[in-house]
Amino acid sequence: MSVDSYRDQEPGRPDVLAEHPHISIAHGSGGRLMHQLIDNVFAPLFKNPDFESQHDGALLEIAGAKLAFTTDSYVVNPLFFPGGDIGTLAVCGTVNDLAMCGARPLYLCASFIIEEGFPTDSLWRIALSMRQAAMKAGVHIVSGDTKVVDRGCGDGVYITTSGVGLVNQGLEISPRAVKPGDAIIINGDIGRHGIAVMSQREGLSFETRIESDCAPLGAPVMQLLEKGIDIHCLRDLTRGGLATTLVEIAESSCLHIGIDDRKVPIRDEVLGACEMLGLDPMYVANEGRFVAFVPAREAEQTVAILGDCSPDLTPVIIGEVSDGERGVVTMKSIIDAERIVDMLSGEQLPRIC
Amino acid sequence: MSVDSYRDQEPGRPDVLAEHPHISIAHGSGGRLMHQLIDNVFAPLFKNPDFESQHDGALLEIAGAKLAFTTDSYVVNPLFFPGGDIGTLAVCGTVNDLAMCGARPLYLCASFIIEEGFPTDSLWRIALSMRQAAMKAGVHIVSGDTKVVDRGCGDGVYITTSGVGLVNQGLEISPRAVKPGDAIIINGDIGRHGIAVMSQREGLSFETRIESDCAPLGAPVMQLLEKGIDIHCLRDLTRGGLATTLVEIAESSCLHIGIDDRKVPIRDEVLGACEMLGLDPMYVANEGRFVAFVPAREAEQTVAILGDCSPDLTPVIIGEVSDGERGVVTMKSIIDAERIVDMLSGEQLPRIC
Repeated sequence: MSVDSYRDQEPGRPDVLAEHPHISIAHGSGGRLMHQLIDNVFAPLFKNPDFESQHDGALLEIAGAKLAFTTDSYVVNPLFFPGGDIGTLAVCGTVNDLAMCGARPLYLCASFIIEEGFPTDSLWRIALSMRQAAMKAGVHIVSGDTKVVDRGCGDGVYITTSGVGLVNQGLEISPRAVKPGDAIIINGDIGRHGIAVMSQREGLSFETRIESDCAPLGAPVMQLLEKGIDIHCLRDLTRGGLATTLVEIAESSCLHIGIDDRKVPIRDEVLGACEMLGLDPMYVANEGRFVAFVPAREAEQTVAILGDCSPDLTPVIIGEVSDGERGVVTMKSIIDAERIVDMLSGEQLPRIC
Repeated sequence: MSVDSYRDQEPGRPDVLAEHPHISIAHGSGGRLMHQLIDNVFAPLFKNPDFESQHDGALLEIAGAKLAFTTDSYVVNPLFFPGGDIGTLAVCGTVNDLAMCGARPLYLCASFIIEEGFPTDSLWRIALSMRQAAMKAGVHIVSGDTKVVDRGCGDGVYITTSGVGLVNQGLEISPRAVKPGDAIIINGDIGRHGIAVMSQREGLSFETRIESDCAPLGAPVMQLLEKGIDIHCLRDLTRGGLATTLVEIAESSCLHIGIDDRKVPIRDEVLGACEMLGLDPMYVANEGRFVAFVPAREAEQTVAILGDCSPDLTPVIIGEVSDGERGVVTMKSIIDAERIVDMLSGEQLPRIC
C-alpha cells in the first residue's frame, strides 16, 4: 500500500472555519452543515484513494478479499426508547452501513464511553440488547474498549461500533453507479424511529404507541443479491431522513431524482405525531429503512423480494432517476405540484441516533 | 460463519452489578475493576469463538485473508499536551493495537463525538495531527462519522478509531503463546506520556519539558518479524502502565513473570515528576512503549533490531518468564528484595488516553 497521497502539500485552513468558529448541534444533524464540515475539514486532510465521504463505508481490497469497513458513534438521547435502546441502535446502525455497501456484515467492534455514576445495571441491559441485535443480524462482536469520563463530561453512555463485511468481487454498489431510468424503491414506512425517540424524550404519549423501526438490513440486501437483482445503489434513511438521503445521492451521482410524495408510505399515527410536533416526516430519521436504486425492469421483482423478507412491511416504488436537472431532487405532491427538496439545513431532531 | 455460539442460554445478571451499582472512574483505568467489568458483563454476553478479551484486537479469517480488527475510544484530558494531542493518540493508539497483534496496520476509521460550541479551529488542528500521524504510521483513514452532543454532555471532543491490519498466515502472537524461558524486552523508557498529560492538566512545569512518547509501533514490529524473530507476545504499555500489562499477561498465560526493577529505563525527570506527584512510574501510561516476549536465544538480536529502528531509545531486557508461581509478577528492587506486583486497583491517572 502506498501512502503517497498524503504527501500532497498540506491543505490550507479552509474559510469555513472562520464562517463557523464553533460547532453547533446542526453540524451533527446529517444535513448541509455536516457535509460542509466533512468536505472542508476531514476530506482534504484524510484524502487518499480509499477515503470515502459519499458512502456509508469504505470498500477495501486486502490480500485478495474485498471488504467493507465502517464506523458510527451513537449518542441517542434518551438511551432507552420504545422499540429499542442505544445498544440495539449501535449494532443495527453499523450492520446497516455494511449492508448498504452490498457487504455481508460479519464482525463488529464496540467501544464504550461511560459517564462516572452510570448504573451498571443499565449497562448490562444495553449490552444484552447488543447481544440480541447481533444474533438477529448474524454478526459477532469480537473486540472492544471501555473508557470512563468524569461526571458531567458525558451523558450516560456513548457507543461507537465499527464493522467489517465481505463484498462479492465485481460488485459495485455506490452513488456513482446510479443511472438514468433507475427505479427507486423504499422497503417500508418512514418516520417511526425519529418519532419514537422524540416522544420518549419529550414525555409525549400518543393514542397508538409508536415503536422505533430499528432493524438489521443485512438479510434483505443479501436476498436481493442472491436473487440476481442488479443493485446500483443502496442507502439507509438515518439522520436527515429520506429527503436528505435522496439529495446526497442526486448530488453525488449528478442526476435528477423525481419522487411521488403520495407513494411514500407513512403510518397515520406517525403523520399525526409529525403534525403535532411540527416535523416534516421526509426529514425524520429511520433505523430500518433504506432505498434501493435498481434498473426499472427489475423494480417489481425487487419489491416482491423485499416484501417476502419483511411480511410486516410494504415496500413500494417511490420514484425514478433521470438526466433532467442534475443534482436536484423534486417531489410531486398531492395536488401534482412539484417542489425542489433540499437537505436538512438546520437541526430538526438532534441526537436521534 | 455461524452465530450458534450466541444461542447458548442467555447469561444471568452477574453479582458484580450489585457490588458496584454505579460506574466509577476506576472502571476506566485499565486495572482490576475494568477487567472485572469486561469479564462479567461484556465477555459472557458477547461470547463467540472470535471474541477477544485478553488481547489488543481480534484475529479474523475472512475469505482467506488473516486480519486483525480493533477499536479504542480516546477521551484524553486535556486535548492538547506536550508532544501530541487527542488526534495523534487516536491514530497511534489504534495502529499500536494492530501492531501488537503482529499485524501490518493498513486502514483506520475515525468517529468524532463533538460537544456543541467546540472551536472548529481546534477540530482542524486535531484532524491535522491525525493526518500527520497516519502518514508516519503508513495507514489510510478511509471512513468516519461525526456526532454532536449538547453543551455540557461532552468535553470538547472524543474520538474513536478502529483499525484493520494484515497478519501473516501461521503467525500467532498472543499471551497464550508465551513460554517459560522467554525473555521480556522493553523498547524504551517508561512514563513520559502519563507525566506529559498530567503536567499539562495540573498546570505543572518541570525544569525539563517532558513530552509524550506517543508514536506508531508498526515499523519496529514489522522489522522484528522480517528479521525472523519468533515473537511470542507483544503488548503496548498504555493505561495501567508496565505493571498492569505484565500482570495481565502473567494471568492469561498462567506463568510467572520476573522483572528486575533496576533495568526498567526511566528518565530522571520522569522519576522526579513521579516522586513529586506521588505516582509509581510502573503504573504510568505510555503511548509508544511495548514489551516483546521472545525466546531467550533471540533476546539480544531483538534488542539490536529495536535499537536500530529507534536510535533515540534504548531497548533492554527487563526480565524473564518461568513456570514458577503461576499468574504472578514479581519485581526485584534495588536492595534485591522481591515484591509481588498487582494490577492498578483504583484510579491513578484517569483520562490519560
